[in-house]
Amino acid sequence: MNSLLIGICGGTGSGKTTLAQKVSTYFGDDVLLFSMDNYYKSNSHLSYEQRVKINYDHPNAFDKELLLSHVKALKQGQSVDMPTYDFSQHTRSNKICKVQAKSVIIIEGILLFAISELVELLDIKIFVDTDADVRILRRILRDVKDRGRSLDSVIDQYLQTVKPMHESFIEPSKKHADIIVPEGGFNQNAFEMITSLITKKLN
Amino acid sequence: MNSLLIGICGGTGSGKTTLAQKVSTYFGDDVLLFSMDNYYKSNSHLSYEQRVKINYDHPNAFDKELLLSHVKALKQGQSVDMPTYDFSQHTRSNKICKVQAKSVIIIEGILLFAISELVELLDIKIFVDTDADVRILRRILRDVKDRGRSLDSVIDQYLQTVKPMHESFIEPSKKHADIIVPEGGFNQNAFEMITSLITKKLN
Repeated sequence: MNSLLIGICGGTGSGKTTLAQKVSTYFGDDVLLFSMDNYYKSNSHLSYEQRVKINYDHPNAFDKELLLSHVKALKQGQSVDMPTYDFSQHTRSNKICKVQAKSVIIIEGILLFAISELVELLDIKIFVDTDADVRILRRILRDVKDRGRSLDSVIDQYLQTVKPMHESFIEPSKKHADIIVPEGGFNQNAFEMITSLITKKLN
Repeated sequence: MNSLLIGICGGTGSGKTTLAQKVSTYFGDDVLLFSMDNYYKSNSHLSYEQRVKINYDHPNAFDKELLLSHVKALKQGQSVDMPTYDFSQHTRSNKICKVQAKSVIIIEGILLFAISELVELLDIKIFVDTDADVRILRRILRDVKDRGRSLDSVIDQYLQTVKPMHESFIEPSKKHADIIVPEGGFNQNAFEMITSLITKKLN
């Protein structure tokens, strides 16, 4: 078995997770969906104070080797022991998930297309493109309302790392996409195009 | 019969015509493909010298009323007497084409999505997005090599009207697209997504 590997990339608040979940739901048990965030580096040799200072919007924040080896294994139908990430502690959590390959594997993440070896492995590359103002508004709502963070801290982080890294790494990586989807999760024609292509490739 | 109406928009040299022709060829006899250019205003009340000076990259250069009435008629399965355009004389030619509606109707053009009433009629909206430098290089090759124009005249026209109109009307109209296709004609996954969706909608 060789799985169909789909990458859904886009900036913070773009709607990539919503789209990934909709596509995943459509194909049900045939899909493995996971976030690239699971592959943030552990950095357990550093103190919490040191880990807080890391730029998590840069491609170097990811454990590229582990991510690539797991993606290759999954694509070939093997199962992997997938790490999970503890965002509150900025390190890998103790929990490991035994994950089975499925005929459709969807990976979503902000910096998916910034890792060229990963781009080469992907069969379908989708970039979700949403205006920066809409994306920051969604991020504020999520981080302030749902995660209890202060507005000032969200804005500081956005201007210090999220925005410059988006412009340096995420925006240029759009070039690698097969299609660019405006307004990710609520674009019915784009959703049907993606699911139609997957159905065709599966048959 | 209600036809499926597809708009393929993009700047000069974007690859929109190549993509439109590939999709059209795929569905063969079920498709009517035409260019929005057929609906440039006739301007026959003006002299040739006056017609040369018209800005043909502005939405006002099109006979919007005729275009909309024909698109509505075709969508409802009626046939229309489609005008053709004589680019050498900058006016409508004497030739009129009796055009029958088909189950798939594809319209391609640079300013398709800049006409809001047209956007509302389209069932699928595709924008072909290619870098400006690649687009001007293609235009130079076409106009200088194939059409025998001087390099200076191509560059003058590009900087005077093509580029500013692209930035004022075409680039912002991208917002209306269901999907944005990088590098139009040679993007196999995008092509298959589009044809898969059309097939699905036809069935």
